[in-house]
Amino acid sequence: MPKGTKIAFVGLGIMGSPMAGHLVAAGHDVTGFDLSSAALDRLEAQGGTAAHSVRDAFRGAEVVITMLPNHPQVEDVVFTNELDPGVLLVDMSTIRPSTSIAIAQRHPRSLDAPVSGGETGAKQASLSIMVGGEEADFAAAKPVLEVVGKTIVHVGPHGAGQVVKAANQLMVGGIYALVAEAIVLLEASGVDPKAGLDVLAGGLAANRILDLKRESMIAREFTPGFRIDLHHKDMGIALDAARQVDVALPVTGQIAQLIAAGRAQGYGSLDHSALLKVIENFSGRS
Amino acid sequence: MPKGTKIAFVGLGIMGSPMAGHLVAAGHDVTGFDLSSAALDRLEAQGGTAAHSVRDAFRGAEVVITMLPNHPQVEDVVFTNELDPGVLLVDMSTIRPSTSIAIAQRHPRSLDAPVSGGETGAKQASLSIMVGGEEADFAAAKPVLEVVGKTIVHVGPHGAGQVVKAANQLMVGGIYALVAEAIVLLEASGVDPKAGLDVLAGGLAANRILDLKRESMIAREFTPGFRIDLHHKDMGIALDAARQVDVALPVTGQIAQLIAAGRAQGYGSLDHSALLKVIENFSGRS
Amino acid sequence: MPKGTKIAFVGLGIMGSPMAGHLVAAGHDVTGFDLSSAALDRLEAQGGTAAHSVRDAFRGAEVVITMLPNHPQVEDVVFTNELDPGVLLVDMSTIRPSTSIAIAQRHPRSLDAPVSGGETGAKQASLSIMVGGEEADFAAAKPVLEVVGKTIVHVGPHGAGQVVKAANQLMVGGIYALVAEAIVLLEASGVDPKAGLDVLAGGLAANRILDLKRESMIAREFTPGFRIDLHHKDMGIALDAARQVDVALPVTGQIAQLIAAGRAQGYGSLDHSALLKVIENFSGRS
Amino acid sequence: MPKGTKIAFVGLGIMGSPMAGHLVAAGHDVTGFDLSSAALDRLEAQGGTAAHSVRDAFRGAEVVITMLPNHPQVEDVVFTNELDPGVLLVDMSTIRPSTSIAIAQRHPRSLDAPVSGGETGAKQASLSIMVGGEEADFAAAKPVLEVVGKTIVHVGPHGAGQVVKAANQLMVGGIYALVAEAIVLLEASGVDPKAGLDVLAGGLAANRILDLKRESMIAREFTPGFRIDLHHKDMGIALDAARQVDVALPVTGQIAQLIAAGRAQGYGSLDHSALLKVIENFSGRS
Repeated sequence: MPKGTKIAFVGLGIMGSPMAGHLVAAGHDVTGFDLSSAALDRLEAQGGTAAHSVRDAFRGAEVVITMLPNHPQVEDVVFTNELDPGVLLVDMSTIRPSTSIAIAQRHPRSLDAPVSGGETGAKQASLSIMVGGEEADFAAAKPVLEVVGKTIVHVGPHGAGQVVKAANQLMVGGIYALVAEAIVLLEASGVDPKAGLDVLAGGLAANRILDLKRESMIAREFTPGFRIDLHHKDMGIALDAARQVDVALPVTGQIAQLIAAGRAQGYGSLDHSALLKVIENFSGRS
Repeated sequence: MPKGTKIAFVGLGIMGSPMAGHLVAAGHDVTGFDLSSAALDRLEAQGGTAAHSVRDAFRGAEVVITMLPNHPQVEDVVFTNELDPGVLLVDMSTIRPSTSIAIAQRHPRSLDAPVSGGETGAKQASLSIMVGGEEADFAAAKPVLEVVGKTIVHVGPHGAGQVVKAANQLMVGGIYALVAEAIVLLEASGVDPKAGLDVLAGGLAANRILDLKRESMIAREFTPGFRIDLHHKDMGIALDAARQVDVALPVTGQIAQLIAAGRAQGYGSLDHSALLKVIENFSGRS
Repeated sequence: MPKGTKIAFVGLGIMGSPMAGHLVAAGHDVTGFDLSSAALDRLEAQGGTAAHSVRDAFRGAEVVITMLPNHPQVEDVVFTNELDPGVLLVDMSTIRPSTSIAIAQRHPRSLDAPVSGGETGAKQASLSIMVGGEEADFAAAKPVLEVVGKTIVHVGPHGAGQVVKAANQLMVGGIYALVAEAIVLLEASGVDPKAGLDVLAGGLAANRILDLKRESMIAREFTPGFRIDLHHKDMGIALDAARQVDVALPVTGQIAQLIAAGRAQGYGSLDHSALLKVIENFSGRS
Repeated sequence: MPKGTKIAFVGLGIMGSPMAGHLVAAGHDVTGFDLSSAALDRLEAQGGTAAHSVRDAFRGAEVVITMLPNHPQVEDVVFTNELDPGVLLVDMSTIRPSTSIAIAQRHPRSLDAPVSGGETGAKQASLSIMVGGEEADFAAAKPVLEVVGKTIVHVGPHGAGQVVKAANQLMVGGIYALVAEAIVLLEASGVDPKAGLDVLAGGLAANRILDLKRESMIAREFTPGFRIDLHHKDMGIALDAARQVDVALPVTGQIAQLIAAGRAQGYGSLDHSALLKVIENFSGRS
């Protein structure tokens, strides 16, 4: 897509707002829509155009990007507004793969393109983007995606981007739970958790979460970052994805309940590393 | 410990044999014992002295190193043979922390010093060694341990080395299970697992197991490495360690059963990455 | 409801067909609809009237009963066909509570009334019926429900019937898994499982599944009964119900994966007692 | 065994004391030992003879009964005191099967005979007794066991009694957890738990725990009964029994951690139905 591509951007929240800003800055013609008028004002301040409705935003668009909370919002936008068959629809929301596949059945020229990297990645245009769909559509979307992301990978057919995102989220949730159990075991045994985790970080157990988060976890600092509430949503997607293809994932099933417990215990707005509190409370240590 | 330290080395198996060899090569006076006469011959070929019994090996030793399968063998060696109070006992076996603490109650000048790094680490003298016990004893043992290891860390009081090892093993087992569930989900969804795991390896889910083992796992190559049977033993230690200090570890409890299933399904002699087969079989995919 | 009540019955499958027959036999004026023409023929042979469409069935009905596979079918029937506000809608399908609540928001005169007792209960008019909704509507529906069920209980507001059914299914699934683990442990230990379970059935572990199914389970006879596939659906409902009210259910989460494994391993058409095969396979015993 | 059999009874605690009393009352010649002198006084008041040591109690005994907390105490009594080969040793403690088998290897004329029924069962001589060992020894012991129990079943070879007891405890623990999850789901959904559980108690989910304990659980009355601490010990035995025969029990593994959590959260002295508190706390409901 050359500069000056007409892009409709639906969903201008914490992620969508900076992404739309980068697209404007890259020279594209961005018309955005969001239910929040503050979000629309922000877009205009960035040099984009505020639409009065999704339908209004869609008018004349060559590319439609959606960045929405979950599948009902995406369905609402995509299924109740007319979309020209030639438009390239890029859904960057994290939703269940089955919805991405259903969208592609109605609008074949679509990509599922969920991201990882969070708010920081959106602001710094350094997101990782996992893309499912046709090769030609991926090629067409790539220049636009490169404006907001650093690693952009075509992982397979429609829905594949969502499956990879689901796999990512189940691993991240699981590793947090394991680090939490290690910390609880070390502390309860009278071992300095920092010394212990330093050793673990140097061996086969090494992982990025241990690198980035072990100090804040030991200090019980849980400022998000990525909220438990969002990870809870994503674990629902992972289990739904497994169900759709008839596989049973025992550890994922358990991690989903631990994260649900985090939310139920009132930690929904904390960083997902607060899974440590769930594991602590389970042993009455808090 | 200067060169020429008199070291008794009990347990000359896959790990102990190369370790004893390094100690001889470093100029120490090593007398070893093992129930296998082949192991004793090997030690003599390395320039060490073969003892006829543990008691024989202990005679005149300044340092005793034990490298044995599990706590009953360690108890057998340590509790049924007289040990001069001044001798520094370094148990490098992976056993439950409670036994290390019980040993220290009888023989205060002892260290628990389990290792990670496996057979390769033993051969290349690049083991990580997690040490529990008194600071002064650690200082005294360090020069000897540096002959066989690369990272030697004093992590806390008696038993702390075993606790850190247990934490390491629960994390490693858990990450294998998570990688396995990711692979099964990707493959069942028609997504190329290599492409999917490549993306995961570049984000927050990044971990050393993904780096080292994702290709062999996708190819279903499970040559050990570290056997499921040994990891099964170690998960028993992790749960025992948790029980001793009254903490409950839900994910560790589940991983222990998955690894037990690996053994029960006949994969005990395969690498622990064969946990993938357990997860596959669980979904009838094999 | 007096004799001669005009009842529309939508969903004449394994459960619905005998239920509709009982209602005809009790003197009610039953018009039924099903996508299967064989089902419609069966209804006519029972003395009911076959409708050409849901809309056709609804015409003039005082009571509408739905007995459908899952929430999409119920939504399809209830949300896309006009229903007079005075009509009493009794949904006897097992679906997620949130859909029952959504139905009640659109059509307040509705009851959720899922059943237990299976095909046999439907044929013998001995179903247990758990009813959620308004007291007055329950009172009005009761005479009709008594034609098909033996135990009819008003358990709470809209959705409550489905919640109780979900609680039932999670307990039944869990007890099957426990009986399976007991059998595997006994057999692997060389203990006659019959002798062992006989003792268990006489103590605090006593339960109806042990009474009814221990012999068939030991003999590996898994003729349904209630199929794993259906229980898989119901575990999805239980987890969805928990999610709606923000509770985390660790055992239910695990049982859901075990039943999913049953389906994935190819036992979907067997009785849910075939969970024994999942537990056996997990230990490589089959 | 005729009246007047010379019985040594070791372990006169909450269970052993009333059992020894019944044996005296039945006309047997009971010499008991316990570390507590109050327990010895109680035995003398019942008409038995207090011994000064285990060795003293063993002198002249035809039958030795042990009723002790766990395997280390049993090993201590049985392995460090000489026992005439002709003496019939009946260990009624709940311990791991592997220890029962080890005892039988040293003293073939032994039975493992753990009980269920608790303190009430001991007082009312209504215990269920699960016996492992030789048929002839079982026949010889039966008249003695009938003095303290109501249901006495020979379930298999040495260790089989313990395996059946382990199977019982894993089922009981699991059913408590399931009832707890049902209560939490019902309450969180605004459904009266009594009404809901009444329905469950009438269907396939029916079980004795629901019958005996649902009212006290809903009322949060957790007076023991059987303490969480003891059930924690027994889950350790169940997992050990599974490990010995190389089976993996996923649900048992999870229930063990839930009960461990109960103890860690400070409910060790409450009835095992207090597992409800663990499940509640997991969802932040307390």
